[in-house]
Amino acid sequence: MTQRKHTGAERKIINDPVYGFITVDDNLLLEIIAHPYYQRLRRIHQMAFAHLVYPGAVHTRLHHSLGSYHLMCNALTELKNKGINITHEEELGSKIAILLHDIGHGPFSHALENILIPGADHETLSLHIMRALHKELGQALNPAIAIFTNKYDKQFLYQLISGQLDVDRMDYLTRDSFFTGVSEGVIGYDRIIKMLTVHHGELMVEEKGIYSTEKFLVARRLMYWQVYLHKTVLCAEKMIVKIIERAKELITNGTKVSAATPSLDLFLHLPSHFAIEEYLDNFALLDDYDLTSSFKVWMAHPDPILSSLCRFIVNRELLKVEFRSEPFTEEEIAREIDYAAKKFNITKTEANYFVFTGQATNTTYDPYDERINILFKDGSVRDISQVDNALIHQSLASPVKKFYICYLKKQDQV
Amino acid sequence: MTQRKHTGAERKIINDPVYGFITVDDNLLLEIIAHPYYQRLRRIHQMAFAHLVYPGAVHTRLHHSLGSYHLMCNALTELKNKGINITHEEELGSKIAILLHDIGHGPFSHALENILIPGADHETLSLHIMRALHKELGQALNPAIAIFTNKYDKQFLYQLISGQLDVDRMDYLTRDSFFTGVSEGVIGYDRIIKMLTVHHGELMVEEKGIYSTEKFLVARRLMYWQVYLHKTVLCAEKMIVKIIERAKELITNGTKVSAATPSLDLFLHLPSHFAIEEYLDNFALLDDYDLTSSFKVWMAHPDPILSSLCRFIVNRELLKVEFRSEPFTEEEIAREIDYAAKKFNITKTEANYFVFTGQATNTTYDPYDERINILFKDGSVRDISQVDNALIHQSLASPVKKFYICYLKKQDQV
Amino acid sequence: MTQRKHTGAERKIINDPVYGFITVDDNLLLEIIAHPYYQRLRRIHQMAFAHLVYPGAVHTRLHHSLGSYHLMCNALTELKNKGINITHEEELGSKIAILLHDIGHGPFSHALENILIPGADHETLSLHIMRALHKELGQALNPAIAIFTNKYDKQFLYQLISGQLDVDRMDYLTRDSFFTGVSEGVIGYDRIIKMLTVHHGELMVEEKGIYSTEKFLVARRLMYWQVYLHKTVLCAEKMIVKIIERAKELITNGTKVSAATPSLDLFLHLPSHFAIEEYLDNFALLDDYDLTSSFKVWMAHPDPILSSLCRFIVNRELLKVEFRSEPFTEEEIAREIDYAAKKFNITKTEANYFVFTGQATNTTYDPYDERINILFKDGSVRDISQVDNALIHQSLASPVKKFYICYLKKQDQV
Amino acid sequence: MTQRKHTGAERKIINDPVYGFITVDDNLLLEIIAHPYYQRLRRIHQMAFAHLVYPGAVHTRLHHSLGSYHLMCNALTELKNKGINITHEEELGSKIAILLHDIGHGPFSHALENILIPGADHETLSLHIMRALHKELGQALNPAIAIFTNKYDKQFLYQLISGQLDVDRMDYLTRDSFFTGVSEGVIGYDRIIKMLTVHHGELMVEEKGIYSTEKFLVARRLMYWQVYLHKTVLCAEKMIVKIIERAKELITNGTKVSAATPSLDLFLHLPSHFAIEEYLDNFALLDDYDLTSSFKVWMAHPDPILSSLCRFIVNRELLKVEFRSEPFTEEEIAREIDYAAKKFNITKTEANYFVFTGQATNTTYDPYDERINILFKDGSVRDISQVDNALIHQSLASPVKKFYICYLKKQDQV
Repeated sequence: MTQRKHTGAERKIINDPVYGFITVDDNLLLEIIAHPYYQRLRRIHQMAFAHLVYPGAVHTRLHHSLGSYHLMCNALTELKNKGINITHEEELGSKIAILLHDIGHGPFSHALENILIPGADHETLSLHIMRALHKELGQALNPAIAIFTNKYDKQFLYQLISGQLDVDRMDYLTRDSFFTGVSEGVIGYDRIIKMLTVHHGELMVEEKGIYSTEKFLVARRLMYWQVYLHKTVLCAEKMIVKIIERAKELITNGTKVSAATPSLDLFLHLPSHFAIEEYLDNFALLDDYDLTSSFKVWMAHPDPILSSLCRFIVNRELLKVEFRSEPFTEEEIAREIDYAAKKFNITKTEANYFVFTGQATNTTYDPYDERINILFKDGSVRDISQVDNALIHQSLASPVKKFYICYLKKQDQV
Repeated sequence: MTQRKHTGAERKIINDPVYGFITVDDNLLLEIIAHPYYQRLRRIHQMAFAHLVYPGAVHTRLHHSLGSYHLMCNALTELKNKGINITHEEELGSKIAILLHDIGHGPFSHALENILIPGADHETLSLHIMRALHKELGQALNPAIAIFTNKYDKQFLYQLISGQLDVDRMDYLTRDSFFTGVSEGVIGYDRIIKMLTVHHGELMVEEKGIYSTEKFLVARRLMYWQVYLHKTVLCAEKMIVKIIERAKELITNGTKVSAATPSLDLFLHLPSHFAIEEYLDNFALLDDYDLTSSFKVWMAHPDPILSSLCRFIVNRELLKVEFRSEPFTEEEIAREIDYAAKKFNITKTEANYFVFTGQATNTTYDPYDERINILFKDGSVRDISQVDNALIHQSLASPVKKFYICYLKKQDQV
Repeated sequence: MTQRKHTGAERKIINDPVYGFITVDDNLLLEIIAHPYYQRLRRIHQMAFAHLVYPGAVHTRLHHSLGSYHLMCNALTELKNKGINITHEEELGSKIAILLHDIGHGPFSHALENILIPGADHETLSLHIMRALHKELGQALNPAIAIFTNKYDKQFLYQLISGQLDVDRMDYLTRDSFFTGVSEGVIGYDRIIKMLTVHHGELMVEEKGIYSTEKFLVARRLMYWQVYLHKTVLCAEKMIVKIIERAKELITNGTKVSAATPSLDLFLHLPSHFAIEEYLDNFALLDDYDLTSSFKVWMAHPDPILSSLCRFIVNRELLKVEFRSEPFTEEEIAREIDYAAKKFNITKTEANYFVFTGQATNTTYDPYDERINILFKDGSVRDISQVDNALIHQSLASPVKKFYICYLKKQDQV
Repeated sequence: MTQRKHTGAERKIINDPVYGFITVDDNLLLEIIAHPYYQRLRRIHQMAFAHLVYPGAVHTRLHHSLGSYHLMCNALTELKNKGINITHEEELGSKIAILLHDIGHGPFSHALENILIPGADHETLSLHIMRALHKELGQALNPAIAIFTNKYDKQFLYQLISGQLDVDRMDYLTRDSFFTGVSEGVIGYDRIIKMLTVHHGELMVEEKGIYSTEKFLVARRLMYWQVYLHKTVLCAEKMIVKIIERAKELITNGTKVSAATPSLDLFLHLPSHFAIEEYLDNFALLDDYDLTSSFKVWMAHPDPILSSLCRFIVNRELLKVEFRSEPFTEEEIAREIDYAAKKFNITKTEANYFVFTGQATNTTYDPYDERINILFKDGSVRDISQVDNALIHQSLASPVKKFYICYLKKQDQV
């Protein structure tokens, strides 16, 4: 098979309200962006149901991955200016890897991950799709795949894509705070990128970037609790899990449930054992639109559980939700279960579709997991939690748990 | 029937990346916003397919109408501070009217207006829905309806909603330039609102606001040509018109075309004579999702015209489009028709689905239509095009026409 | 004496790049702003010498106090909307108090505080000037003075002006990060203000504002170390202290040192005992311009210490400065002293003008000093450092100290 | 003489609130920036007295020239990416030329140009200073000087520095609208730069940049009338002209007038014939501080005209000013002259210091002077005023004149 030639002849600029202009100046990158696999990301919200609370937060996975690509370009330019050796092939590979890092996300991204397609997380799917593109686009994606899977020897390239301080996180914090209007999520991505360096093959932050890095971690913490795990957002996302679970249960029990599109129907009727590779083409047709249209259709389904949940989500008549630091008691839950069972004339087991509890968890910074290393002028290296007068201290390393309960509003008429 | 009581007890603040926070502090307003009719606007893109060129432009009609409401609040506060008499009822009525001014928009807003539902423009539908809400919400919408239909005697309230310099336009220019990242569309909405006044019952701009008003008109002109009528955006929006036309034609000819949702099916199979009032409930279920999901489904339809157009739009493989100031010749068009007919093995008449021409038109400012009146310190009133050294001159009053042609890319493989 | 009448007839709007427009709609406020005492603040940099590192940071005390006034207006409106009782007199008093809270700042604000005029800090001077204005403006400032000195019984009004979370701090963090371009200093002032409330007469933050409050403290911490105590900024500000000390020493020793202006001359020749009240009129003539012009003049002074320090500051040829967590040793200091003494042919004692050490100190949050109280929905009150999973923990309560040394660059030619 | 070697080893980044970060990565550029000649620009307001109306507008000439340099870097990168041949020497020369293009500005920039130093405009002075730096910095500025004086054969480099659409204008519009908060002055500098190209050796704008270019001209027009020629700003700037004229007149007549600094004294006592080259060192000591300090000192001068004008400007008690499209009549002027003469007990001739008229003039776009050429895809070139449906039409080519009068406020007590 002939190696396709991809010369960087063409050049496109894309308007981005966050960064101004994003430049794409390589034909292979342009081919990837033009591919239907990539274009599908236009139809997946970056933040699932966050827009129910933050109406501006309707931006897409496509926009986020273009943004991450832009920051990757900046980071690579910066590192090269500092004398770090990065070949053209590595540069292109890194750019492709970040462009495709989220290509495996399904409808509503994380919200339905492992629910709609059990056992297939988005990284696995991303890798499958990258391999498919590799075949289709002249075997040109090997460096990208090696970097993406951390099998490339310059580890800092992987760390730029997937680490505690990668361009993915920098873009999503910046972009999500821009589109939600939560100004406190703003980070100094520009400064952090200027402070990045490589030491013994690993990505590090120069000493002058300590405060910006701390600020980055605090902004992330804030965004988690104020936006990503906002109780209303969390509730909506759990509700669509319940919808999919109910739809599958009905199907298993022999009740007909037709999705709005054949693609979604296929995934609702998956056999218990399946090889995801064989479903890639169908997966590539699946996005938020299949789901939301189906919710709209199912508002008229005879099953009161499915139809009610769908009506709730479509009309934004969400369940009531409470957060607290202690688990909810059996009694509290039973009371709500009773109410729901009576109201809908369903069994207590079925009432769990309207009453459910769980935990929301976030860790501000886990130094035992991935580290953010600070390179000091004297050549020493310390973790961000170990610098003098660190803001990020031991107690922030353990995950914060909040317990939640979702249940029917009492004044609701069904 | 008892008049419902709406006390302004509750109060919600909504994060908006454009204005910071939007405050809603009246129960009736909150009820309207919570209504499924209003929530539907979450699922209608403000700018239809502009996001194919400007990936950030995915904001919704809901967001725009909340934003217009916010500017209305500011404008009313400003006018009251200047001593203009506005009662509480008028204030609430104006706020409801602006909140609902776009409630009648169907899928993809203007792009499919009068196509999907012939003869029903969005203002007519808005009025029908306002009347329906009036019945449902305790007969409380009379002032809003009177203002919206310009039957209220304080004409300036109508002009704030629908005029050359209304809060609708101020919001969409501001918001669309924010989300597209086209910084040149930025207007000084804040300053314009501070310069608004009322003279002989009509909305005017104080002398000090002349430059801001000129700037507003120039920004609008720029946004039209650079964004709203961008050739790629225009092409995509014409393509979905073709899709609907083809689907309806097939149905008329007896070929089965099933939409993804029953709601869309209903409107594709409308009788030739119908009263839109009887379809309001179904209309209220219709949004971008029904359309896009159907496009995705129809990618597999046996008709090559329908399936190709759908695939083109879903995968962003758009037709080629050209603009010029002269009409395209018969020969030019015939050549493209021939190519398309041959390529798809269809008749020349059918080839018009892939080859079509038309005009894009925009008027910078038409002083004969609606006027922007400037109130001078000496009490005189002049139109913005009549002030000393006006930027906005006669020649800008006639519409600018650009002719376009859309046709198949030659290197396309179908 | 007749009580002057101040009706709120006039109304001015002031363009502010930070907040858009600032509205002043009371004649007494306009009179205060127009007064030469207030206009003097135009000639005092808000951030002294920070512009040597951040060239945009040239904004003035006048701008900051107008901005604080704007946030005070917003905060009072918000509290009144929540049902907190605030009379018109209290409102006006609070606005005047914040407008004048920094009126006592002398040239280069904090940098020369207690140096140029020993024993007179800026709060004391602010109070003297407020009393002078009180006499001049029809005895109208009593409420403002009572609030400013915390003698007014509604303590929350004082806390809005001077507390851990006051409008002064909210403005300076917001404004300073705007003008420096240090985006990480951005705080959610808008959200914090919306979360303010009053409980048992004290200013509190609602539970939903916890993350914004933590973010505020982290942003402040960052701004201190990255901007206010930036080593170059610190060095420049210490250098002008040395200049004033040298000028005074020369004068004491009988060497003639003429300032560029009589006002500064007066303060350089103050008697050892003086009552500042008698110098208010002269103080009101003193600003950054007297100092900088004098530095320029003194570049030609025969004393090599004075002239060199002045040349260094005027031409931005600053001393070298180092930070570290341990004090500098006697030997390190002695080495630099020797170098300086030799270079300038001066005594070792005199060499201390070019070689000096000290500490920079900042406390992220001191719960023992002033507190930020969070009001929970259940009515309980906890300090921000005591909430669940607090970011702001004990170890941040003790001040962080950094030791610095300033000394001559070795390659310097004098 | 040995040619000094300037290797681009060092690299500095400067925080700019407008563009984020400005990078300087060449030692010669760093030397120029560090030079006292350049550092002087820190002490010259970019917008003279605009801050009396727009309090944020206190940014400096240094900041503007750094910003213009940044845009020059971007423009050169863009042109090189388009295949335009630009050597390293040309690149460095262009950067130096733009960095130094305003180095010849004296105190209050344009406001006192040709007044304080008759016959020496800022371009002439810039060239003198560039030549002085050329001598001092190893004869390295020849390319910069050739480009600056339009003697270099690649004319587009000169046009980037000085043309209808140069980086100087792009920066000052962007920067001035940022610091004033006049959002309508915002231009799409980013897009314009991406649309720049070179055709037959001349700078042009690609067809796609037409609307951005029109927008640029409209923004400039708006900034002139709303900011640069704002009547209060104009009045203040004319008042300092009167101050200098009075000071010089008094000196000529033998009255002692001592400036706060020897540098200013020198220029107030210039002989009628002088060679500016001999005064460069003194000129390099002159800035806004010498003037403002002297105004403060002269508030106590025995001459009532000088002292009053100085008090007016220092305390912002400005003359009254009116604009209109017709000249003011002899009678109108005489009435004000009489009032002033009486009030100050001065002659009618002297009263002209308090009463004066003149014209403010601005041309939106003069196609006969410098042109903005648009390069169409078909290779044709047209002036921006000649494109189809041009916004910028003939009538905007003639200058707009407004007549102004400044006179004493009647209620003034002196």
